[in-house]
Amino acid sequence: MTPFESESGDGGVALAERAARRAIDDADVQPDSIDSVHVANMAAEAFEARTGIQNALCGALGIEGAVADRVENTSASGASAVLRGVDAIRTGRADRVLVVGVEIMSRSDRDDTTEIISRLVHDREYAQGVTLPSFAGLAADRYLDVYDADPDALAAVAVKNHRNALYNPFAQFQKRITREEARTSPPVAEPLRLYDCCPTSDGAAALVLDANEGPVRVAGIAGATGTHAVAERSDPLEIASVADAGARAMTAAGVDHDEIDVACIHDAFTILELLELEELGFVDRGTAWRATLDGQTDLDGDLPVNPGGGLKARGHPLGATGISQLVELVWQLRGDVPGDRDPVANAEVGLALNVAGFGNNAICTIVEGA
Amino acid sequence: MTPFESESGDGGVALAERAARRAIDDADVQPDSIDSVHVANMAAEAFEARTGIQNALCGALGIEGAVADRVENTSASGASAVLRGVDAIRTGRADRVLVVGVEIMSRSDRDDTTEIISRLVHDREYAQGVTLPSFAGLAADRYLDVYDADPDALAAVAVKNHRNALYNPFAQFQKRITREEARTSPPVAEPLRLYDCCPTSDGAAALVLDANEGPVRVAGIAGATGTHAVAERSDPLEIASVADAGARAMTAAGVDHDEIDVACIHDAFTILELLELEELGFVDRGTAWRATLDGQTDLDGDLPVNPGGGLKARGHPLGATGISQLVELVWQLRGDVPGDRDPVANAEVGLALNVAGFGNNAICTIVEGA
Repeated sequence: MTPFESESGDGGVALAERAARRAIDDADVQPDSIDSVHVANMAAEAFEARTGIQNALCGALGIEGAVADRVENTSASGASAVLRGVDAIRTGRADRVLVVGVEIMSRSDRDDTTEIISRLVHDREYAQGVTLPSFAGLAADRYLDVYDADPDALAAVAVKNHRNALYNPFAQFQKRITREEARTSPPVAEPLRLYDCCPTSDGAAALVLDANEGPVRVAGIAGATGTHAVAERSDPLEIASVADAGARAMTAAGVDHDEIDVACIHDAFTILELLELEELGFVDRGTAWRATLDGQTDLDGDLPVNPGGGLKARGHPLGATGISQLVELVWQLRGDVPGDRDPVANAEVGLALNVAGFGNNAICTIVEGA
Repeated sequence: MTPFESESGDGGVALAERAARRAIDDADVQPDSIDSVHVANMAAEAFEARTGIQNALCGALGIEGAVADRVENTSASGASAVLRGVDAIRTGRADRVLVVGVEIMSRSDRDDTTEIISRLVHDREYAQGVTLPSFAGLAADRYLDVYDADPDALAAVAVKNHRNALYNPFAQFQKRITREEARTSPPVAEPLRLYDCCPTSDGAAALVLDANEGPVRVAGIAGATGTHAVAERSDPLEIASVADAGARAMTAAGVDHDEIDVACIHDAFTILELLELEELGFVDRGTAWRATLDGQTDLDGDLPVNPGGGLKARGHPLGATGISQLVELVWQLRGDVPGDRDPVANAEVGLALNVAGFGNNAICTIVEGA
């Protein structure tokens, strides 16, 4: 992957090419041996006034004669492109697939960027001014109330993920924060504050998928849509897409929760990390806040969550995020993590969760070390 | 599909839903039996300031728990989404797939729309001001010169495709034109004139793909990238992506040229219909102009091409086009074509060709009647 940054100075094709070349070098393959190329990107038309990144990328890499397309699934575009690549291999039509996620969020007008992201939700909810931060704030408020949860748990998620990113050279923020700083940062959608929210980012990440056995295996991958309108959910704290995708991926992989050693989940807002831990079934409903305060999701806890810093601190270049989660898991499972940090001890099975919108779609991937 | 129009009055999600419901009704299936949804769209971020159409569409159709994503491959997004859906079925993970293509080109500022489309080409070529119409004009000029071709052949393509659309209630133009009108229409990129170019359009088209046998079978589908920069091609009249995708699809389907009864190919410019007939191997290089003037591609010719009017007269709502080609072929192979027109006699095998950019990527699909 490339370092995630608030402003990279490069365009999307250049960043995608850089990440792709790193993945190709790491896999030690020749570009012209790749027969399927899938680029994850949410909104280059709006952010960079361009489409067809996949074709420009193939041109830059000298790949001819491949199947190539772009996959968009808002903030879950990355994992959707991986699923697309896995499907290509599983049909037998591709032997080697390049999946690249990229987003440039620094070059567009800030109001336009906000508008594009705001339009992810249901039209009726958009019309009422409910944005993703609003939904997250409403959910956090209700969560704290219903489960009588300690609001420090939200800050604890932010502090943990910032701590995990501290020595990750690919993270946008390498800055330690305290709970006090998180709690007193400017309000965004109360109870959520600035440090409860991921940033906007530029960045790219890439994977080479191969029909033959490699150091890490995709053991299961599954996607699921939920209700598009949050108002249609019987309980606004439930995210059915996450529960469905998680259960399916674990069934496909044939693994139970206690076999999963490390997880990269979609902490676009701190409250989401709590809700997703519950929806995935790692903890009982209404208890993720306590598990977090108890340190269970710390690097040395029962289930280290977001060891690379998560969306919160590694950054969230939309189309690249789902792929960067898997890049982090590959590093963890190979036991060789860039930067001055240690891999999670003896990690053999990892889980990645990439979520679109406010949970209208989710993709869960289980990977296993060799 | 929906009628293709210069301005539909609806947004992309509404049009996509309408086309999807027609396909679902036609297939006589329940929406909740669909387990994979793939939306083809080129640039809704730019044209409608929205992403995630697939999730809004699933919400509108009441589809929950499905895999859903959007596929973008510029003007070949439609066929790329079909390939994505076919892959989903071929892996065994999906039994029933909904593929919907949609584009709304009427709501964005005309200059912005032109800019997005202009950026499809290589950055260096874009920087020199070479747009898709310029490439087409240069190719047409060279074609006429190299093969000493009668320029009337270009007008003949336009006249034929307009004639084919005359009684197609889904076509944007139901207007007969003469060669004289085509030849004397305003110049766009000489020798190409207004009637040599497809319009911008609003529209949607949809297909239900099923793991079980239906009235029409996807016998082969294949994609291939070519060189992104046209300047890198040894001969600017060659489109390697089309030749590769066509040969692979025909090999996969196990059919020869003479078994193909009807074709829908990518006539974004009249010259492309000629070049593609040659690249696909239906006629020898440099002879498509004569075959066209001889009426071989007419409805009653050896190989009827673009019986629904093609991009030229049916319209070209970018993401919907590749799917509308297959909708037309399904009608043809079922022998039941909407409107006051007759299907091609005894059509059993059809070919669709959808092309991205100026041939940096192409997807060819072969379908067979039951």
